[in-house]
Amino acid sequence: MNQMQSVLLENGKLAVNTIDKPTPGPGQVLVKSLACGICGSDLHITRHTDEVYDVYKTLGVMDASIQDDPGILLGHEFVAEVVSYGPETKQSMAPGARVTCVPILMSMGGAGVGVTPGLYGAYSEYFLIDEALMLPVPDGVSSIEAATTEPLAVGLHAVNRSNIENQEVALVVGCGAIGLAAIAALKLRGVKHIIASEPRASRRQVALEFGATHVVDPTQDDEVALASQLADGQPVVIFECVGIHQLINNYIMRAPAKARMVITGIHTTPTEVNFAYATVKEMDISFSYYYTPEEFAQSLQNIAEGKIPAQKMCTGKVGIDGVADTFATLFKPNDHIKVVIEPWRQGALEMMSE
Amino acid sequence: MNQMQSVLLENGKLAVNTIDKPTPGPGQVLVKSLACGICGSDLHITRHTDEVYDVYKTLGVMDASIQDDPGILLGHEFVAEVVSYGPETKQSMAPGARVTCVPILMSMGGAGVGVTPGLYGAYSEYFLIDEALMLPVPDGVSSIEAATTEPLAVGLHAVNRSNIENQEVALVVGCGAIGLAAIAALKLRGVKHIIASEPRASRRQVALEFGATHVVDPTQDDEVALASQLADGQPVVIFECVGIHQLINNYIMRAPAKARMVITGIHTTPTEVNFAYATVKEMDISFSYYYTPEEFAQSLQNIAEGKIPAQKMCTGKVGIDGVADTFATLFKPNDHIKVVIEPWRQGALEMMSE
Repeated sequence: MNQMQSVLLENGKLAVNTIDKPTPGPGQVLVKSLACGICGSDLHITRHTDEVYDVYKTLGVMDASIQDDPGILLGHEFVAEVVSYGPETKQSMAPGARVTCVPILMSMGGAGVGVTPGLYGAYSEYFLIDEALMLPVPDGVSSIEAATTEPLAVGLHAVNRSNIENQEVALVVGCGAIGLAAIAALKLRGVKHIIASEPRASRRQVALEFGATHVVDPTQDDEVALASQLADGQPVVIFECVGIHQLINNYIMRAPAKARMVITGIHTTPTEVNFAYATVKEMDISFSYYYTPEEFAQSLQNIAEGKIPAQKMCTGKVGIDGVADTFATLFKPNDHIKVVIEPWRQGALEMMSE
Repeated sequence: MNQMQSVLLENGKLAVNTIDKPTPGPGQVLVKSLACGICGSDLHITRHTDEVYDVYKTLGVMDASIQDDPGILLGHEFVAEVVSYGPETKQSMAPGARVTCVPILMSMGGAGVGVTPGLYGAYSEYFLIDEALMLPVPDGVSSIEAATTEPLAVGLHAVNRSNIENQEVALVVGCGAIGLAAIAALKLRGVKHIIASEPRASRRQVALEFGATHVVDPTQDDEVALASQLADGQPVVIFECVGIHQLINNYIMRAPAKARMVITGIHTTPTEVNFAYATVKEMDISFSYYYTPEEFAQSLQNIAEGKIPAQKMCTGKVGIDGVADTFATLFKPNDHIKVVIEPWRQGALEMMSE
C-alpha cells in the first residue's frame, strides 16, 4: 500500500485524490495524520488563492516561479502518529507515538506545511515533518484537543506581542479560535479585564469559559465604550481576531486615545485608512502572524495541564470525504468555532458534544 | 496702543490684519512674539483647513460647532517676551524675560495655541500663554534657536515612542525639521547607525551635522537595503518624517521583517494599504503626534547645552508682512528647512547664514 487519500485544493475546489504516500528525506519523519483543524487561513486560501500567494511571492517567502494554482495540500494544525523515519534521524520516538510540531519544514528551507504548493499537508492521510521539531503529545490529551495547540500558540503570540500589562484592558474582537486563544492567554497572563466582543451567543458563552470577564454583543452594545469605562484612563488593547479588513479603520476611528491594536487577521485585500486618527490618538498597531517554538510548546503544555479548556473550542469533526462539504458549510454563517478533520476515516461533519 | 498686527488665515489665504491685543485672563500671561517657526502643519492647515478640522471635530478635540473656516491665527513654535500678567498669577518672571512653552492653554480647556480658531497664535505681535507652563529661555540661546524647541520635542518624542535600542538601525525618512530633530534625539540616545534618507543634498549635509551616520539620496540609492545591511539581523526602525501618505504603504511593502515604523507625518488623506505585508513581516506601526512637557523642557536644555546645532535647522527668517509670500515659496519645491517669523518687524524672506 504505497498510496493514500489526500484533500487537494485546485482552482478553488476541494476534492479527495488518491496519491502516492510521501517518502521521508534526511531528517524527516513520515507521520499519519490523526487530527487536523480547519484554520480560517485555509478557508481564505481556498477562496482567495491568488491574492494570498501574490503576497507571499512579493515578499519572497514563496518561489515566484510557482504557478498561480498548482494544487495545494492543506493542513497545518495537526496531531499525527510516527510511522517511519528518513535517513539522518535519531528515531527519537517509537512508531505509533503521537506527535505535533510547528508546521514548518526546515529541511525544505523553512517551507510551511499545509500552505506550500508541492508539500504535503495534514488534510492527507500521511505527510512529512522534521524530527528536530516534533513534540510528544502527552497521554492524557486527546488528539483533537492537541490539534488546537497551533491556534492557541497564535493567540498566545498575539498577547505576547501586545506587551499588555495586567491593569490594562483587553478587548478581544471576535471569538473564533484565535480570539478564544487570545482570551486564554490573557487570563493566564493575569490581565484583570478581558472583554470578548462577539455577535454569536454560543461563542460568547465559550469566551466566558476561556476566561473572558465581560462579553458584549457588538450589534447591541458598544464594546469600545465598555473598554474605555473599565480602563479608567489606562490604555485599552484591542485584539482584532476576525479578519475583516474594514475593522482596522473601524477600530482606529473608535478606539480611545493611546489604544494599542494587535491585528491577527490576515488582510490580503487593500483597505482604506485615515491614519490621522491614529496619529492624534497616538496609537500603536502591531501585526501578529506566527509564533515561536517556545509559544507552541507552552500552548501544548497549557492544554496538558488543564489550564485551557481546548476541547470547548472544537465544535465539529469530519472524515476526509466530508471536507469539501464542510468548507461549504463554513463559508456560510454558522456556529462552528473549530472543525477538526480526521483524515484516517470517512464521515460527514458532525457536531461534537463535550 | 491697544492694537497689534496679526497674520490671519481665512479661506486658505494669509493676510496681515490689525486687531485688538488680547487681554490675559486668570493664570495667563500676555507675551510679545519674538520668533515663531513655520511648521509643516501650518502649511497643511492652510491648504487643507477643512480636512484637518474634520479630523479634530470627529475626535471631539475641537468643538463641532466651530465654523469650517472662521479665521485662524497660526503660530505654535514660539519664543516670546513677558509683557504683563492676568489675575491669579505669581508673576514669576519679570516683564522682558524671554520664555517659551508647550503651545497649550490649559486655562482654555487644553486648546492648542496657534491651531484653534478663536485663540491667538504666535504669528501675531502679541498672544497669550499659561504662566504655569512657561519656561525661561537661557541667556546664551538666541530666540530663533529656541524657537526650534517645539519641533525638537516632536522628534524626541517620536524616538522615545520607538523604544529603539542602540544596536538597532534607525532609518529617518525626510530631513525637514522633524527628521533632523529625530536624528538629533537618536544621536543623543546613543543609537549606533542613523541613516538619513533625503533627496535634497543641502538637507543631507545638515543631517550629518545633526548626527546622521549615513546619508542616502533615495532617488539614487536604496535606503531600505542599506538599513537591512547595517542591521545584520537586528530590527530596522523607520521614522516617517515627510507626511506623504503613500509612504506608509511604500515602507510596509519594502521594510524588512520585524521592522518598526514610527509615523510622525499627519496624514489626513485616506490612503490604501495592504496590511497582509505588515502581517507577514510582523511589523509594529506607532503613530507619534505630540510630546510631553518633559520632552519639551529636555529639548530646550539640549539646545542650551550645545548638544543640538539647532541654528543649522533655521534657513530663513521673515517679518510679519512677508509671511504670505513665504508660504507661497514654501508650497513650491525649495531648499528651506525651517523659516522663522519675527512678527515684531517688517521684512521679506531672507536666507540665514550661520
